[in-house]
Amino acid sequence: MPIQFDLDPQVEAAVRRTTELIRDVVLPVEELYRGNAHALPEAVRRELQDAAKKAEIFAPHVGQEYGGLGLDMRDRAALFEAAGHSLFGPLALNCAAPDEGNMHLLEVVGSAEQRERYLQPLALGTIRSCFAMTEPAPGAGSDPGALSTTARRTSSGWVINGRKWFITGAQGAGFAIVMARTSGEPGSPGGATMFLVDADAPGFTNVRAIETLDESMFGGHCELLFEDVHVGDDAVLGAVDQGFDYAQVRLGPARTTHCMRWLGLARRAADLAAERAGERRAFGSALGELGMVQQLIADNEIDIEASRALILKACWELDSGARAGRITSIAKTFVAEAVGRVIDRSLQIHGALGISEDAPLARMYREIRAFRIYDGPSETHRWSVARRAVRVAAHPEGTR
Amino acid sequence: MPIQFDLDPQVEAAVRRTTELIRDVVLPVEELYRGNAHALPEAVRRELQDAAKKAEIFAPHVGQEYGGLGLDMRDRAALFEAAGHSLFGPLALNCAAPDEGNMHLLEVVGSAEQRERYLQPLALGTIRSCFAMTEPAPGAGSDPGALSTTARRTSSGWVINGRKWFITGAQGAGFAIVMARTSGEPGSPGGATMFLVDADAPGFTNVRAIETLDESMFGGHCELLFEDVHVGDDAVLGAVDQGFDYAQVRLGPARTTHCMRWLGLARRAADLAAERAGERRAFGSALGELGMVQQLIADNEIDIEASRALILKACWELDSGARAGRITSIAKTFVAEAVGRVIDRSLQIHGALGISEDAPLARMYREIRAFRIYDGPSETHRWSVARRAVRVAAHPEGTR
Amino acid sequence: MPIQFDLDPQVEAAVRRTTELIRDVVLPVEELYRGNAHALPEAVRRELQDAAKKAEIFAPHVGQEYGGLGLDMRDRAALFEAAGHSLFGPLALNCAAPDEGNMHLLEVVGSAEQRERYLQPLALGTIRSCFAMTEPAPGAGSDPGALSTTARRTSSGWVINGRKWFITGAQGAGFAIVMARTSGEPGSPGGATMFLVDADAPGFTNVRAIETLDESMFGGHCELLFEDVHVGDDAVLGAVDQGFDYAQVRLGPARTTHCMRWLGLARRAADLAAERAGERRAFGSALGELGMVQQLIADNEIDIEASRALILKACWELDSGARAGRITSIAKTFVAEAVGRVIDRSLQIHGALGISEDAPLARMYREIRAFRIYDGPSETHRWSVARRAVRVAAHPEGTR
Amino acid sequence: MPIQFDLDPQVEAAVRRTTELIRDVVLPVEELYRGNAHALPEAVRRELQDAAKKAEIFAPHVGQEYGGLGLDMRDRAALFEAAGHSLFGPLALNCAAPDEGNMHLLEVVGSAEQRERYLQPLALGTIRSCFAMTEPAPGAGSDPGALSTTARRTSSGWVINGRKWFITGAQGAGFAIVMARTSGEPGSPGGATMFLVDADAPGFTNVRAIETLDESMFGGHCELLFEDVHVGDDAVLGAVDQGFDYAQVRLGPARTTHCMRWLGLARRAADLAAERAGERRAFGSALGELGMVQQLIADNEIDIEASRALILKACWELDSGARAGRITSIAKTFVAEAVGRVIDRSLQIHGALGISEDAPLARMYREIRAFRIYDGPSETHRWSVARRAVRVAAHPEGTR
Repeated sequence: MPIQFDLDPQVEAAVRRTTELIRDVVLPVEELYRGNAHALPEAVRRELQDAAKKAEIFAPHVGQEYGGLGLDMRDRAALFEAAGHSLFGPLALNCAAPDEGNMHLLEVVGSAEQRERYLQPLALGTIRSCFAMTEPAPGAGSDPGALSTTARRTSSGWVINGRKWFITGAQGAGFAIVMARTSGEPGSPGGATMFLVDADAPGFTNVRAIETLDESMFGGHCELLFEDVHVGDDAVLGAVDQGFDYAQVRLGPARTTHCMRWLGLARRAADLAAERAGERRAFGSALGELGMVQQLIADNEIDIEASRALILKACWELDSGARAGRITSIAKTFVAEAVGRVIDRSLQIHGALGISEDAPLARMYREIRAFRIYDGPSETHRWSVARRAVRVAAHPEGTR
Repeated sequence: MPIQFDLDPQVEAAVRRTTELIRDVVLPVEELYRGNAHALPEAVRRELQDAAKKAEIFAPHVGQEYGGLGLDMRDRAALFEAAGHSLFGPLALNCAAPDEGNMHLLEVVGSAEQRERYLQPLALGTIRSCFAMTEPAPGAGSDPGALSTTARRTSSGWVINGRKWFITGAQGAGFAIVMARTSGEPGSPGGATMFLVDADAPGFTNVRAIETLDESMFGGHCELLFEDVHVGDDAVLGAVDQGFDYAQVRLGPARTTHCMRWLGLARRAADLAAERAGERRAFGSALGELGMVQQLIADNEIDIEASRALILKACWELDSGARAGRITSIAKTFVAEAVGRVIDRSLQIHGALGISEDAPLARMYREIRAFRIYDGPSETHRWSVARRAVRVAAHPEGTR
Repeated sequence: MPIQFDLDPQVEAAVRRTTELIRDVVLPVEELYRGNAHALPEAVRRELQDAAKKAEIFAPHVGQEYGGLGLDMRDRAALFEAAGHSLFGPLALNCAAPDEGNMHLLEVVGSAEQRERYLQPLALGTIRSCFAMTEPAPGAGSDPGALSTTARRTSSGWVINGRKWFITGAQGAGFAIVMARTSGEPGSPGGATMFLVDADAPGFTNVRAIETLDESMFGGHCELLFEDVHVGDDAVLGAVDQGFDYAQVRLGPARTTHCMRWLGLARRAADLAAERAGERRAFGSALGELGMVQQLIADNEIDIEASRALILKACWELDSGARAGRITSIAKTFVAEAVGRVIDRSLQIHGALGISEDAPLARMYREIRAFRIYDGPSETHRWSVARRAVRVAAHPEGTR
Repeated sequence: MPIQFDLDPQVEAAVRRTTELIRDVVLPVEELYRGNAHALPEAVRRELQDAAKKAEIFAPHVGQEYGGLGLDMRDRAALFEAAGHSLFGPLALNCAAPDEGNMHLLEVVGSAEQRERYLQPLALGTIRSCFAMTEPAPGAGSDPGALSTTARRTSSGWVINGRKWFITGAQGAGFAIVMARTSGEPGSPGGATMFLVDADAPGFTNVRAIETLDESMFGGHCELLFEDVHVGDDAVLGAVDQGFDYAQVRLGPARTTHCMRWLGLARRAADLAAERAGERRAFGSALGELGMVQQLIADNEIDIEASRALILKACWELDSGARAGRITSIAKTFVAEAVGRVIDRSLQIHGALGISEDAPLARMYREIRAFRIYDGPSETHRWSVARRAVRVAAHPEGTR
């Protein structure tokens, strides 16, 4: 049976509709707001999502019982990439981080009640959410084991205390999935639990939206404070003390869908650069006939194709039932670096124009940088990939 | 339908048998001759091939009517990679360059008579062959259009004159596929024809085996002289003046199978490095616990996985009927550079031992370098990929 | 005579005073305005410059007859690097682009009258200036020969027409040095002349400040329009039709001083990263004990030292009387890429904090990107360096 | 005082004589033996050295009282680079590793008697020497502290036991400087002593010359065995237990002179590539007019100039009395990687010819690889540079 990179016709049609929606509806909005989601009114978000619903490409990753398309990872890859051409594309399709990963987590781990209360409105775009894991130093950063937010058991449920930051989408979110330590000490691996905490829970404060290099994430990156926040037992997502495990359930797909979306942006940058190279002249010929520019363009294509191929491999593993693992770490590391290179080269081909806000390259350049850091910085993924390789080499009977 | 990276059970079993043959039979021979094919007796070549026949993994790429396994490109990828762990593995399986590409060309373009006379014994390993295209400056090199060897029509057939070099496998080959100009001038694209020329044809001289950095190609890299070599019309492979076209028929698969084989060698180097990193200690810990070594190891894994994924994409396109094109150029360029990096890093992890012939790393390092040059140097492929990207960007209705 | 990298004691003392001024006076202002020069009031600019005057480090590159320190390139290297630690440091010392290069040009090419009218107040910081060369496509960009702004001779002087953009510092500048074609056609090399044009000249409009990725250049990057701007013969800087030649007079030092200033910023980024690596802990040890972080830190040091060494070589050549040439092109290309890498690595070491405006890394990241584009993009410099190398290799009796 | 990169006229003249000797005398010998020093007869070594003596460029680094030129590091830089154009150049000038470093060590640390007995004939080229430090695993490799060869005190002197490998130049050497542990345990830093051991000392066996990727080192890389080798107290070089300290005395200059010599080879490779790029045509133009080739050539020039500038900085520090330190580590790491890149690019520009022994590129490629490993692999130097940077950042009052 030959390997099949072609898409099913229905999926291909959905990709086509996505491409059209992005071009006709979403990119003009991105231009208007210069990719700054902090300036984007909630009403416009809803308009974009209504357009996606009408195009029947809304919530492609969510089960059909919740109004989504129920696509597997592999089919998502094509749709998310098409959506990612615009910084606001994933928002329009309701497949942006962190909601998209939260929906997945709720679908897999949530109770029927939790799915109804949280997943359903999330899938419809009625509310938004955030995932509160990262903490300021010396808390949980690239090393989740340093988790220092705590949830203490009481007679009636739990009391959460701690500080989180860089919590994407928190501004205006209806609820947060909060990771808190329920046993063990910071530095020890075990003992985290996930809690569903409503935004209006007493003691839960959104301290500030942190100003960052990137601006395209709706709801910003926020600093959150939990001061004696009481929640009931029904707020526990899944089982107590299984939080790190669920984080893996979420992370494998989440980091892979990040790759898909950002790959779309890289494709757009590369297209703009190739187009300009065909038009702009210097030294008596089109830029695109100059060898050094050709090298930049070719390396863009190589990076994009290798990224796409690695994403599909990760999709296959995830669709086959695997969790976050070696191949998703490899894909995330490669793609985060590759899309950064693509956008950097494409900006370079634009020359001074690339630095200006007259073209979208500078904006893309700002947006893409963080991807080498969040969802595990490249260094952490390399560390994990290398340790596994050494272990396998010492015991080659294990699988690679 | 989810994308499927798993292999069919029969192919997987053949891969397993290949891995065992390489480990038990081929690697000891490689060690004995230190990877130097020029020192390898013809008798040992036959012994290796007999072992592969017995293991039922011989000529995996050739149709079953010629005694091969009849695998498509995608299944070859797995088998060829497994064979490539040893420099002599592809020879054992009779899937080494240039015979493997020549068999493909004969299978697709050859007449029934030519297939019987040339393809059949080639597929059985009874004879070997070479592909005589590259010429010394100012002839055909990275730019095939500079072809200056000529075939002049006579009453009874053709007379070939010219000089070729870096013709792999020519030493001891039973015949050569010779590319000669039958119309047009050097510098003009059109007008090449392929000829099947027997090794004992009067006027056909193997001038010398060129000494090169690499030594693992059986039959060496030779300089050939054609002085008034007469051949009949039955020596024309395919149609007159279609040579450049057939070269593409050969090149797409040929450059992709090169990737497969060399990826196997890179995998072996990475395995050796990871193994050593787990054992060797410095500065109070195992090498494999030092971050900079972990980075080398992780980058090996990333390069290998990206290579493998790109090769599969190229296989899919070739299995779907495409010729040499954008994706095979991208795969060739990326893989040639990636496997070079993998072997370089693996050597570095071995330290002084890596430089010595006590370990196979130095040998691998010598062997791999040429791959960035033959079958199109990286620069030529980038040029072609970039030109296509600029063209597509200018007319986006075309496919990418 | 051994080569001497040590500085004269007086210069070393001036460097020390610069370092103190930056730390105590300038960096707090940079923090207050987050490096955004567009928000920096003119009054604060004057305060900073007064502080630098008091510290006797003002206008280090200008001759003492104009109130400067009269340092040669080599001594400037140390002072400008120290000033460059802050984005506003060069402004404080009055050695920021484009004024610094304009002062040099006026000092070398200007008439006594022009030096009194333009150089003197510029050297004192009373006024600012800009250098109007770059034009929107299809005008002069990386290829200056495409110059399309024209100056037509009249009975009473010249009439200038044309459009310029990315003219740094134009907002609020007292005058512009305008490059205009006085003979030949766009695409032909010869025939440009430099004109001194007062900001209030009728027909000279500052169309807009272009929004750009970087924000630290006082006076912004502007689009300028020249519509029938009349100037007298005394506005000609140097001789008619010698503009491209004078551009080289300006460019060699100007691109080298850019290197000095940005190297200072890179040094600051690397210091911040090394400091954080010593403090922040993850996975049970300080970041700075993790090998992959050590690699980032070591590569910072290597890039900085190589940059510094190349800058000194360029200084030596310029101090010996050479113009813009091979070594300044090499230094500019290497340093622009190296400082970009240093800031990128330093941001990475900061993790999420690096992306936020809580630390200055994101700001540095935005500011540094353009340096690979202005004063000749890397591609143009490489082209020129390569052509010279090929020429020298063909005629090795020439010097390298 | 401006920095001065020019050479004194006498040194410049000596460089010119070196360049001529290399071109007229040494390169023909290198070609004849294809750079293989193992095939080079001792008599030819002496002929080459006689020619260098006649040209008055022999032993440039040795004091005049021993017949050398007595040049400081900075002047050596120019001469050694010129000599390094040929793989046999340093041998001809008697400034090849390891003799050159051993002469330095003996000059600084040796007693008057030792200088007469060992340094004098070494400086004249009458005998050769080796430096026996590296050991097979788990002994001293990149981590010298793992030293396991021992010297035990007896009534009449010392008894040495241990195994060394990759001891360059040992074949035919008159004596070895042997590093042995005189106190402490493997893994502990302290307690090494250097001994002068004659080649004919009973118990001292040259087990084998290790086959390696490189072949240009006269006397090869050998494995040495010390079995109860008795030496007197006069064999102690310097003081007991100070061996690690003396290793630093040797290493700083030794690694810097390695940089000088290899830079010469890189310069030769770059020259050959630029020359070929000017001559060879493809796709209708000279290679040197193709942008991707220009990029390779320009990057060669950049790497060479940055290497040269860093070497001079290291020379200055060493000439000022510093030992092996930060800047020599930085220079060694950068130069080892840069010269490797230069030779790799130059080979690529040569295409298939670069792989063949018809041109010297393949040979250079084999020779250069080890430089990233010996005298401290890049990883070890980066580790040391980074640790220092973190320490300085934590206590910025220290110097950088």
